[in-house]
Amino acid sequence: MNKNKKLILASCSPRRRELIKLLGMPFECISVDADESTAHTNPEAAVKEIASKKAHAAFSERESSANEIIIGADTVVVYNEKMLGKPSDDADAEKTLLSLSGKKHFVYTGVSLIYTNKEGALSELSFAEKTDVYFAEISLSDIKKYIATGNHKDKAGSYAIQDEFSVHVKGINGDYNNVVGFPVARIYQELAKIL
Amino acid sequence: MNKNKKLILASCSPRRRELIKLLGMPFECISVDADESTAHTNPEAAVKEIASKKAHAAFSERESSANEIIIGADTVVVYNEKMLGKPSDDADAEKTLLSLSGKKHFVYTGVSLIYTNKEGALSELSFAEKTDVYFAEISLSDIKKYIATGNHKDKAGSYAIQDEFSVHVKGINGDYNNVVGFPVARIYQELAKIL
Repeated sequence: MNKNKKLILASCSPRRRELIKLLGMPFECISVDADESTAHTNPEAAVKEIASKKAHAAFSERESSANEIIIGADTVVVYNEKMLGKPSDDADAEKTLLSLSGKKHFVYTGVSLIYTNKEGALSELSFAEKTDVYFAEISLSDIKKYIATGNHKDKAGSYAIQDEFSVHVKGINGDYNNVVGFPVARIYQELAKIL
Repeated sequence: MNKNKKLILASCSPRRRELIKLLGMPFECISVDADESTAHTNPEAAVKEIASKKAHAAFSERESSANEIIIGADTVVVYNEKMLGKPSDDADAEKTLLSLSGKKHFVYTGVSLIYTNKEGALSELSFAEKTDVYFAEISLSDIKKYIATGNHKDKAGSYAIQDEFSVHVKGINGDYNNVVGFPVARIYQELAKIL
């Protein structure tokens, strides 16, 4: 695997920036203002589409180079066949966390890679990774304490698995970093095929 | 749950110190020199016994107080019904990682809590948590690169799931922090019963 290409992450979220380092390749991040709407009701198709829109937004902002790989990523939480994005306010976050308490939900992260293939043609590869997440029963008082930290803001499903909320996560089935928002293991496998 | 009691961690491993913070309680760590041998061949019994030995070593070093809870923890990796501890040297780590490549293994962490119960009696509670871990196929060159980082030293199974090795971990079934070496979610649930 040629690790000399440069990764351009179409997001400057601190979580994704931490995780992209694990790939051991040079990288840079660009904040993009992509349209995050989708007509898809299937979560896998939805996150792949939004990840692709983010990657294309970064691509059009940047002088393209055959030596760069642009990466867009988007994460949603799915419970009861409904896609949950970021909470609109604290009351919405409380309602979401109460509904997830004691239950299983799914986290989907879509990833889109824009790159120049071995034949020199501009190409795009998109995929989605799914992880099941099991919450313990959470008291209303614990939910209120968590929301008071402010960490739920800007998080799909109103929680972050890597912060103090982790005491309520009994287990997962799948890739942990996918729940954080960036499935590094799957990305590494896919990069190995194209590099 | 009374979060005013103080946790005394019978280990100053940086990973366990980071994770114990997630419980949101005051804590302190003590390095102990406990006997880590066990006659048990059952991994659950083995990690519970060693965790208990660590907790007792901390208990005997310390002026006991009804306001403190002593926590010992021990982690092993199990593959092919064999318990794998820390690697003896780099060659041993390479052999271990090659054998785990492309396969499923199990991680067991045993935890022992020494505390004063609600009736004022000194008590001990021990439990073990198990997580299944699935590795992707890993090339010998990737294994050698990982060993060159030195991060495998002092790690049961010769890897840390939270560092650059994570690109080789396809997924898990169970608690992620249990693989890191400290199952905070289960510990939180057990503390809620005794506090």
